[in-house]
Amino acid sequence: MSASINKLQAYMDDNGIDAMLITEPKHVYYLTGFASDPHERFLGMLLPRGKEAFLLVPALDYEAAHAAASVKHIHTHSDTDDAYAILRGLMPDGVRSLGIEKDHLSVSRFETLRAAIGAEVYADIGMPLREMRVTKSPEEAERMRNAVRIVEEVLQAGAALVKPGVTEIELVAELEYQMKKRGAQGPSFDTLVLAGAKSAMPHGMPDRTAVREGELLLFDLGVFADGYASDITRTFAVGQITDEMKRIYAAVLEGNLRAIEAVRPGASFGSLDRAARESIAAAGFGPQFNHRLGHGLGLDIHEYPSVHGNNLELLREGMTFTIEPGVYVSGLGGVRIEDDVLVTASGVEVLTNYPKTLTVIG
Amino acid sequence: MSASINKLQAYMDDNGIDAMLITEPKHVYYLTGFASDPHERFLGMLLPRGKEAFLLVPALDYEAAHAAASVKHIHTHSDTDDAYAILRGLMPDGVRSLGIEKDHLSVSRFETLRAAIGAEVYADIGMPLREMRVTKSPEEAERMRNAVRIVEEVLQAGAALVKPGVTEIELVAELEYQMKKRGAQGPSFDTLVLAGAKSAMPHGMPDRTAVREGELLLFDLGVFADGYASDITRTFAVGQITDEMKRIYAAVLEGNLRAIEAVRPGASFGSLDRAARESIAAAGFGPQFNHRLGHGLGLDIHEYPSVHGNNLELLREGMTFTIEPGVYVSGLGGVRIEDDVLVTASGVEVLTNYPKTLTVIG
Repeated sequence: MSASINKLQAYMDDNGIDAMLITEPKHVYYLTGFASDPHERFLGMLLPRGKEAFLLVPALDYEAAHAAASVKHIHTHSDTDDAYAILRGLMPDGVRSLGIEKDHLSVSRFETLRAAIGAEVYADIGMPLREMRVTKSPEEAERMRNAVRIVEEVLQAGAALVKPGVTEIELVAELEYQMKKRGAQGPSFDTLVLAGAKSAMPHGMPDRTAVREGELLLFDLGVFADGYASDITRTFAVGQITDEMKRIYAAVLEGNLRAIEAVRPGASFGSLDRAARESIAAAGFGPQFNHRLGHGLGLDIHEYPSVHGNNLELLREGMTFTIEPGVYVSGLGGVRIEDDVLVTASGVEVLTNYPKTLTVIG
Repeated sequence: MSASINKLQAYMDDNGIDAMLITEPKHVYYLTGFASDPHERFLGMLLPRGKEAFLLVPALDYEAAHAAASVKHIHTHSDTDDAYAILRGLMPDGVRSLGIEKDHLSVSRFETLRAAIGAEVYADIGMPLREMRVTKSPEEAERMRNAVRIVEEVLQAGAALVKPGVTEIELVAELEYQMKKRGAQGPSFDTLVLAGAKSAMPHGMPDRTAVREGELLLFDLGVFADGYASDITRTFAVGQITDEMKRIYAAVLEGNLRAIEAVRPGASFGSLDRAARESIAAAGFGPQFNHRLGHGLGLDIHEYPSVHGNNLELLREGMTFTIEPGVYVSGLGGVRIEDDVLVTASGVEVLTNYPKTLTVIG
């Protein structure tokens, strides 16, 4: 990732920053190849302007960091060390302006860091770090296609088990089992299977609720594979459903398609959201589409940018995000149809291929 | 949880704080019964001094919040709203000192909050919130026993499938499948199965590495059940292992037992760590035990307090934490033996019951 390092170095030159402290584990992974979950322990990569980066990692992660990381210099701290004092000792002289991740660093950590380092200025480096990750390389896109391929096989295997009486958590267990068996690292978020009226709760929790004839059944799931996330939602009809449910389904599908049609380099994120929202409002369900259209997708399941109506930012080739309109009617049920898309030079590649026409299962 | 609310009210009285903004989802769950993962969206409970609390939640979580939360007043914001402006509008007059969670709030969010609210003082309320959760009620202890019971059944089912040739991820898939089937909400962290030399990487990642005869095999897993976490590590011998491996196992087991013996109200956390560390050092493996003894356990898999040698804090009845010494020899393998314990009036209840004598499997 030396091209990324060069860009970060140029950003420091342009903005008078003397060093960057990068602690968000996904950013560290992107830059070094070292993936870790340090929990409350300190993990950081320090990139001084014009010099080589070093890592400071928990002692128990040294082997894993050494095996994976492209960074030559790896320092460690134990659980009884003061990691910030060690960082101060390693810091080159003359760091007047230190770049930090204000979105990631807690106020406590920042206060500790400030007391230990004593720089004069703390600049937010969230923007260049997000920018570094927002357009995916062909290799990253390929990993995302693979994560989508796996989750679609998983969804197919899960959908085959639907019948009246099976519970939401039995289906979740099967889906997550299939994820591991098919080579995913694991789910990219808590797998949702929501039956009947519960499908109207976008963040409801699967439990022992049973699937019943004549209801909607919503699956929202994703995997991490080779570090990258996929995320798909499909809503099925269990046996015969009411005309009202069919109208909701048709409205959401139309909104999904209108948004996808609008994807091309130079369009704004807001215009995609509006395309879906206007279509769904025209069908009479405007107020029941009560969340943004989608979110960025990559190393994180939810990452920059946010796909909502007020986002004036323009799409660029290589960006990847979800398109997931939904309509939720309290007491009746909800429908959400979510795809993952990649912006191409000429328009859009829809990474998800699972059928979207209303499907009766069970 | 009105006893907790009363304590937080008293804390505000004692410390001249006019309102508390609580945004850590587990704290909100503890206080209201509403569990959620708001991702980057704003979720907060505002508790004004001498007044009733209210919740401000993402619009799409309204139904779930209303169904679960013991808080009467629930306000919402949509993805295009400015949640902080809504919060300012809801804030009672005269909030000069606002309590915030400095461990949880990011520097960015704090800067946004400060610009919107304009209080004069921002006091850290991490301490009273940690304190509220650190000693478990009998009902909480019972939920933790249940989470342990589930994970031990899961471990037993997984251990039964070990044979040379099976891969780490096949075992992880089986374990996580068993978790859901047995009523857990899911794993409380990424399940670890590490074979052979990989068992020396405490945070290594399971992959297609196969289990082999004559090696160590480490399982580290836990579940969330009814909101509470369990966490257990056991290390097995696959067939006959070397005398060196047996010596490592005996040293770790002895360290584990010495630490458990030291658990009683009034002992310091540091003394537990030292009891294990001195025992392991006497067996000749001091430098290879390169992490703290354990961590608090409850609604979070890693929570306050940290069980390390420099922690002078004293144990109190109702505290729950892990005891997990380990010895890691690069190239050969590692052993870790982890139990969950509850401090009782007279000493300790070891929540985990899975056998700890060296067991040959496969």
